[in-house]
Amino acid sequence: MTENEIRNLLEQVRAGQVSAQAALERLRRLPFEDLGFAKIDHHRSLRQGFAEVIFAPGKRPEQVVSIVRRMSRNRHNILITRGDRRLYRSVKRAARTARFHELSGAISIRKDKRIVGKGLILVVSAGTADIPVAEEALVTAEVFGNRVESVYDVGVAGLHRLMRHHEKLLEARVIVCVAGMEGALPSVVGGLVGVPVIAVPTSVGYGASLRGVAALLGMLNSCASNVAVVNIDNGFGAGCLASVINRL
Amino acid sequence: MTENEIRNLLEQVRAGQVSAQAALERLRRLPFEDLGFAKIDHHRSLRQGFAEVIFAPGKRPEQVVSIVRRMSRNRHNILITRGDRRLYRSVKRAARTARFHELSGAISIRKDKRIVGKGLILVVSAGTADIPVAEEALVTAEVFGNRVESVYDVGVAGLHRLMRHHEKLLEARVIVCVAGMEGALPSVVGGLVGVPVIAVPTSVGYGASLRGVAALLGMLNSCASNVAVVNIDNGFGAGCLASVINRL
Amino acid sequence: MTENEIRNLLEQVRAGQVSAQAALERLRRLPFEDLGFAKIDHHRSLRQGFAEVIFAPGKRPEQVVSIVRRMSRNRHNILITRGDRRLYRSVKRAARTARFHELSGAISIRKDKRIVGKGLILVVSAGTADIPVAEEALVTAEVFGNRVESVYDVGVAGLHRLMRHHEKLLEARVIVCVAGMEGALPSVVGGLVGVPVIAVPTSVGYGASLRGVAALLGMLNSCASNVAVVNIDNGFGAGCLASVINRL
Amino acid sequence: MTENEIRNLLEQVRAGQVSAQAALERLRRLPFEDLGFAKIDHHRSLRQGFAEVIFAPGKRPEQVVSIVRRMSRNRHNILITRGDRRLYRSVKRAARTARFHELSGAISIRKDKRIVGKGLILVVSAGTADIPVAEEALVTAEVFGNRVESVYDVGVAGLHRLMRHHEKLLEARVIVCVAGMEGALPSVVGGLVGVPVIAVPTSVGYGASLRGVAALLGMLNSCASNVAVVNIDNGFGAGCLASVINRL
Amino acid sequence: MTENEIRNLLEQVRAGQVSAQAALERLRRLPFEDLGFAKIDHHRSLRQGFAEVIFAPGKRPEQVVSIVRRMSRNRHNILITRGDRRLYRSVKRAARTARFHELSGAISIRKDKRIVGKGLILVVSAGTADIPVAEEALVTAEVFGNRVESVYDVGVAGLHRLMRHHEKLLEARVIVCVAGMEGALPSVVGGLVGVPVIAVPTSVGYGASLRGVAALLGMLNSCASNVAVVNIDNGFGAGCLASVINRL
Amino acid sequence: MTENEIRNLLEQVRAGQVSAQAALERLRRLPFEDLGFAKIDHHRSLRQGFAEVIFAPGKRPEQVVSIVRRMSRNRHNILITRGDRRLYRSVKRAARTARFHELSGAISIRKDKRIVGKGLILVVSAGTADIPVAEEALVTAEVFGNRVESVYDVGVAGLHRLMRHHEKLLEARVIVCVAGMEGALPSVVGGLVGVPVIAVPTSVGYGASLRGVAALLGMLNSCASNVAVVNIDNGFGAGCLASVINRL
Amino acid sequence: MTENEIRNLLEQVRAGQVSAQAALERLRRLPFEDLGFAKIDHHRSLRQGFAEVIFAPGKRPEQVVSIVRRMSRNRHNILITRGDRRLYRSVKRAARTARFHELSGAISIRKDKRIVGKGLILVVSAGTADIPVAEEALVTAEVFGNRVESVYDVGVAGLHRLMRHHEKLLEARVIVCVAGMEGALPSVVGGLVGVPVIAVPTSVGYGASLRGVAALLGMLNSCASNVAVVNIDNGFGAGCLASVINRL
Amino acid sequence: MTENEIRNLLEQVRAGQVSAQAALERLRRLPFEDLGFAKIDHHRSLRQGFAEVIFAPGKRPEQVVSIVRRMSRNRHNILITRGDRRLYRSVKRAARTARFHELSGAISIRKDKRIVGKGLILVVSAGTADIPVAEEALVTAEVFGNRVESVYDVGVAGLHRLMRHHEKLLEARVIVCVAGMEGALPSVVGGLVGVPVIAVPTSVGYGASLRGVAALLGMLNSCASNVAVVNIDNGFGAGCLASVINRL
Repeated sequence: MTENEIRNLLEQVRAGQVSAQAALERLRRLPFEDLGFAKIDHHRSLRQGFAEVIFAPGKRPEQVVSIVRRMSRNRHNILITRGDRRLYRSVKRAARTARFHELSGAISIRKDKRIVGKGLILVVSAGTADIPVAEEALVTAEVFGNRVESVYDVGVAGLHRLMRHHEKLLEARVIVCVAGMEGALPSVVGGLVGVPVIAVPTSVGYGASLRGVAALLGMLNSCASNVAVVNIDNGFGAGCLASVINRL
Repeated sequence: MTENEIRNLLEQVRAGQVSAQAALERLRRLPFEDLGFAKIDHHRSLRQGFAEVIFAPGKRPEQVVSIVRRMSRNRHNILITRGDRRLYRSVKRAARTARFHELSGAISIRKDKRIVGKGLILVVSAGTADIPVAEEALVTAEVFGNRVESVYDVGVAGLHRLMRHHEKLLEARVIVCVAGMEGALPSVVGGLVGVPVIAVPTSVGYGASLRGVAALLGMLNSCASNVAVVNIDNGFGAGCLASVINRL
Repeated sequence: MTENEIRNLLEQVRAGQVSAQAALERLRRLPFEDLGFAKIDHHRSLRQGFAEVIFAPGKRPEQVVSIVRRMSRNRHNILITRGDRRLYRSVKRAARTARFHELSGAISIRKDKRIVGKGLILVVSAGTADIPVAEEALVTAEVFGNRVESVYDVGVAGLHRLMRHHEKLLEARVIVCVAGMEGALPSVVGGLVGVPVIAVPTSVGYGASLRGVAALLGMLNSCASNVAVVNIDNGFGAGCLASVINRL
Repeated sequence: MTENEIRNLLEQVRAGQVSAQAALERLRRLPFEDLGFAKIDHHRSLRQGFAEVIFAPGKRPEQVVSIVRRMSRNRHNILITRGDRRLYRSVKRAARTARFHELSGAISIRKDKRIVGKGLILVVSAGTADIPVAEEALVTAEVFGNRVESVYDVGVAGLHRLMRHHEKLLEARVIVCVAGMEGALPSVVGGLVGVPVIAVPTSVGYGASLRGVAALLGMLNSCASNVAVVNIDNGFGAGCLASVINRL
Repeated sequence: MTENEIRNLLEQVRAGQVSAQAALERLRRLPFEDLGFAKIDHHRSLRQGFAEVIFAPGKRPEQVVSIVRRMSRNRHNILITRGDRRLYRSVKRAARTARFHELSGAISIRKDKRIVGKGLILVVSAGTADIPVAEEALVTAEVFGNRVESVYDVGVAGLHRLMRHHEKLLEARVIVCVAGMEGALPSVVGGLVGVPVIAVPTSVGYGASLRGVAALLGMLNSCASNVAVVNIDNGFGAGCLASVINRL
Repeated sequence: MTENEIRNLLEQVRAGQVSAQAALERLRRLPFEDLGFAKIDHHRSLRQGFAEVIFAPGKRPEQVVSIVRRMSRNRHNILITRGDRRLYRSVKRAARTARFHELSGAISIRKDKRIVGKGLILVVSAGTADIPVAEEALVTAEVFGNRVESVYDVGVAGLHRLMRHHEKLLEARVIVCVAGMEGALPSVVGGLVGVPVIAVPTSVGYGASLRGVAALLGMLNSCASNVAVVNIDNGFGAGCLASVINRL
Repeated sequence: MTENEIRNLLEQVRAGQVSAQAALERLRRLPFEDLGFAKIDHHRSLRQGFAEVIFAPGKRPEQVVSIVRRMSRNRHNILITRGDRRLYRSVKRAARTARFHELSGAISIRKDKRIVGKGLILVVSAGTADIPVAEEALVTAEVFGNRVESVYDVGVAGLHRLMRHHEKLLEARVIVCVAGMEGALPSVVGGLVGVPVIAVPTSVGYGASLRGVAALLGMLNSCASNVAVVNIDNGFGAGCLASVINRL
Repeated sequence: MTENEIRNLLEQVRAGQVSAQAALERLRRLPFEDLGFAKIDHHRSLRQGFAEVIFAPGKRPEQVVSIVRRMSRNRHNILITRGDRRLYRSVKRAARTARFHELSGAISIRKDKRIVGKGLILVVSAGTADIPVAEEALVTAEVFGNRVESVYDVGVAGLHRLMRHHEKLLEARVIVCVAGMEGALPSVVGGLVGVPVIAVPTSVGYGASLRGVAALLGMLNSCASNVAVVNIDNGFGAGCLASVINRL
């Protein structure tokens, strides 16, 4: 039952064709979303901005391409996460402007290149092995309409490398901070800036890294109080949340 | 906005005092629950049957008593979980029929003694130290209007004790099975009967019992396929669910 | 020693050919099951209803087929869990009516299509990646003689999708609720209905999902009190237990 | 070496009293902070806004009072976290305007009541036992100069209670979402709004709640992509981060 | 139905007062234990040898004394575990020969001082803090009728202390090996002897000892292949099992 | 320095060619093992009985064959654990009497078929998937010179199957009890017999079985006090320890 | 058998009173330590330097005092760890020069004030709550004869505070680095210096700090390769090891 | 801004071309590293001695070779960790003196064969399966300019094998101790020597070894106080730290 149908129902009440009691009965049986939730859904699509997202794992290339084709009818950007070069080739045939981001496996299709985020989103990562997750965050924020830059390979055991980028840190409006192993980077970065830091632990490491749990725990215990944490390896989530904040 | 107000609104539409469009606008802004969710809440109270529940920890005696007084105006049974003798004395003054269940700390006030459950709920427990949790399940099921019996101290290392109660096991319609340590009882009981077994791990034990996690894991891995598990020490939850099943 | 042999022994006592003392000695040495346990076993087969189950992993196709052939002599339904298309082809040759359920790998052979469950079993799942586990629960409940329906892809971050199926939720007699990641769906569903909810955590997710442990813990801590939990990815167990409850 | 000393050194260079080489040597040996880090520290105090924070546990009342006295010379607000009524009485004597927040043990001294946050910070919590943590977040955000409101006791097993506050949820610029047990609330709230949601797991619960770890894992696995998480019971951190975001 | 009753039934069959069929019916309904399980129970008391055991925690002194009084009618030894000096005083009044073992809190009453174990049970422990658990094992084995000796304070970081007792190690028929912290002692002892070593991890330690889990894991991974492990702090269980082995 | 050399040294002292002091000096510098440890090693080989053991994983077939060839010069039995059919073929060429045990991958070469264990070692296992581990225990005990029998597929959810073997359980001198999932079998078996039960958890199961940790914890918390536990899947260790006990 | 006895034995051989063979027999039966291990023990006391250590918990004051009295006969320093003011008063009466270190509860008695460590041991700690553990390390290193200094309250979220002490960091020969919460300090410090860093995680924190496990894991995963870790809160161990290194 | 530029600036001040104030402003904006951090970096390269390290996993052979080529211009040794034979062949073509260490996969290129470590680094390992990690430590220490020896296969269940190397243990200046399973070796070795012991847990084992966590916990709880621990399988880190200590 769409908005139109409800209006029709009300017109019938007005016209005396339907009693108030009968209308009440029908309204009560309305699927939930027809009134209130529709509004939510609307906000939901507002929130997603102008990007649609496809999580590639578990989907066959032809399924992904078919979703891309259907999405392509509107003017939204499209982001495919955790794909590979083979999937990229299939997508490329359906969407000429698709770009492949090799380290993260992300595929982006940007139709709408407007910048809607108010400031710079900076993606900082600790080791070279963390770059795939950092790239996922970066591409996500980009596809969602933000100005994004990155500072890679600035682990805390080599502070001078991080400090070389101090001005850039101070320029950012939101920082995404990606680190595996001991996950100490967000605490150090959080102490250097006055903006929100979204920490992304990665599963980089071995042994006592417990597939990222060590980094995760480290970040949750950060002594900097402008840090919040997302799931291990969740570059996409960090990019999303950074976009939501940057649009405020 | 209650049902009456909606009916009034519709009557106003019908009377031509409000346009369909304006009514649509007002309906759209309705608090959610006014239509659909009210119905849910109704079902909710139906589900709770004729018992109200108060979780005592963190509440002062006078707070509990004041809730009991307010609840006492309708004819529902009242269950207070995890109380103590001191709380019981306070409650007793407000509700003469209150009974104290010493091992579990439960306090029950039964105004409505009808039996609504269709069969017998049997509470089985492994060791003497598991009895407080078992008693909580038993009192809960009783207050919710069920015929309840118990078989205690029938751990799996002494099968003959359990077997002495074989007829009783076969008589039950729902079984709540409470055990700490290795948590093996639900598997054995589940293999002996053809009805649902709700397993409650307890924090009884020490060392590698990991405060009930060993029993919990054991029950989740049960090789009997009529077993489901609730939280550690959650006698209340098991009694609740047993009631819900027994009313089907 | 079968029932007949015991009767013969008693006849010999009666005929004075065996003394009471000697009979007592022989009875005392009886294998356990000959008296009491036989009865248990009988109940056991009653419980299993008219379905036999084969867990495929670790068995070679020819082994499975041979078990299927032996089982086929009676009129029970047969369920093979966690198989694959190759196994299906082998089974198909032995049992023409075998059906393959691709996502879960289940293979079902329904000879007896009577419905013995009293109401509707509804299988609800959160994300598309949870569907294989949900399908296993669904096929299990179906093979065990129940009317089953499913509502998929209704995660809690998009409540309106769940709410669209509110009537269906209220119609069910037992609900199986399948979810990975944060495992929040059973709490929400449990709050909307007055019937038992069997929660199945799935290993869907990554990082801090800890292969389903996050969802498992979430479900065990559910604030809805009509929820019980089975093992991670245990669609079969949930379908079984739902059948046991639905036959009450 | 202060800024003045550096200026003096440069003046001496200018006056020819010190060679460029000698000045270079002395500059090279400067303690780090004299140049660059001072700038950081400056930003740091900017970030803290106009509030100073004292973590009470492990400090004796007279120590806290003495810190409060020293801080009171400037015009900053003061927040003392995790205190108690006894500490409050001591502080009250030193700072007449001190207020005690009983559930969380926070003590706030607001000299500067300007609102610097741009929108509403809404603190939402699931159960009554989560309120102390929620209150800590609320008081923190308030002391840091934000307009703050709260919605308590809206657990996901009773959706209608949450939905009653839907308009309020949509009004907020930042949401702090506090929940123990299964920690499902942030996913549901995150799906209803388009702003950042800071999730705070609490140690509320027992058994498989593992002192808040279950809620923590649930929140990290949230299927809503505008959610980030802070440490268990860390209401202060959530209030801080919400302030940092709300000032953007 | 006791053995006598079954004999009577058989006599009635013999006398023609009961038909074979009727007797069969009655036998089929026998409580399980009346035939087979009685035998088990008999073996069970045989196994326990001549000692009865009372686990003190959770029992009031008068309860323990009353159990002791009842047990005292036969000639079995009595062991009370995890008691304290106050309980001891109460027990002492009921049983003059009661002895208190201060470190473990065990109370032993030995009426039957025969030695039934075939060889020496040696209890070896690593640090002074492990002695309470070692003492519990020692007293248990003693009460169960074994010759027992102890070697304390021989941690693996001071091999020479252990080696001083090499002859004693070689003399033992069963060794109980008690250690906290890294739990390495059983591996070293196991490598020095050719008899079974029962390893008991203790909760001695702090931090990464995880309340005995570190020692437990160490012992389970022992590179000596004559080592098996019981629960953390389970001196009683180790003493029991050592007795069972020593009686073979 | 061998025994001969020490004797020579002492003869030199006796002959006056070396002073007591100089001899003392040389003795003090002796490598440890020359006196005491040699003795230990002797005991060690005594302990190993007449079997040598090769752990196959990580060794190339030619390495294993070469070790087998070297070992074959004495009359000891040889046991190769965790091999495969390909390795077996290589070994077979070097040792005609080698036998392959397919489920466990064990390869046994029995030259000495004497039985040195005093009684029966019984290997009991819960599910069909536990049989490989059970077989490893069985073959190990056999190669070490014991009479061994097995009872498989007697999980606790089908007690009647276990009870059918009650006589056999009572006949055993040592029982090895192998189970995955909830690991409840050792508690039940331990309660039925009066001999030592060595419990072997297996990694059989999924989800909350945590690769055998659930079964391990269950067994460590066994309420039967004649049970001790070895590492997950450690059939070899259980067979070894059973042999050590059976030789007492 | 002491060294003298061995010499006597050899003299008897020399005098022809004992045959070489008989002497060999007696030597072979020597307790282990009489030859080789004595040497080890000697090295052991060398290693401990001139300090004896008493771990106070679980000892009564009079026991500690009595040990102190006995130790006082030689010239070694004495360190009592984890004591309290009450114990200190007792010790003070027995040893006039005893000093109490309030935060850590250490009591030190320094008779020998020589410095044997070759360089400076620097103890660095992150938060004020970490100081008790840091103090334990500091006092330990001091008592063991080292020059020790400390730098406290230099958490990684305020780098400028750490950097103020950069010269001191570069002066140290061994660094002990104490931190709770995310445990990031050793990585940062390790990256700034070229000497060994001994990392001590503390149990400071709450929630996801898991009583120091988060800090422990962080330190084990340090990206600086001159860092090794000791147990949580093990200030004593760190001070010991630092002394061992500093004496090289 | 390089040192030269700062000198130029100071010369301009001296020449009166730039005011002190303007110079101060420019100095204040200097990138951090230009003054202080450069010094750190210098120390850093000093620390790394004359070896450069490449972590091979995740890098393609041609990338590694290109880094080797670039590094080869100076006279530093080069260490490639966790490579394989195929990578070795590529590297060999670029660097004729490259050597392959098969068990660990390390590739070393030693141009500078000077020994800078002051004493012997001894690498001790428990089982044959631990040798790859031990070899990584050994090659690392060698490439970093140390005299290194190894003692392999000396598990604690066969003390006599360890004792055979007692003299060698006493000769070492630093010991790296590698062990999986129960990780007991460092405690035993630590008790025998007076020098630092760096413990490396390995992931060798199965079941309750939890991929090295059991060994890690064991080592952290070592009762020897000259032991510190690095990450599981981190042979490289141990070799590094041993070098840092050995150069003191």
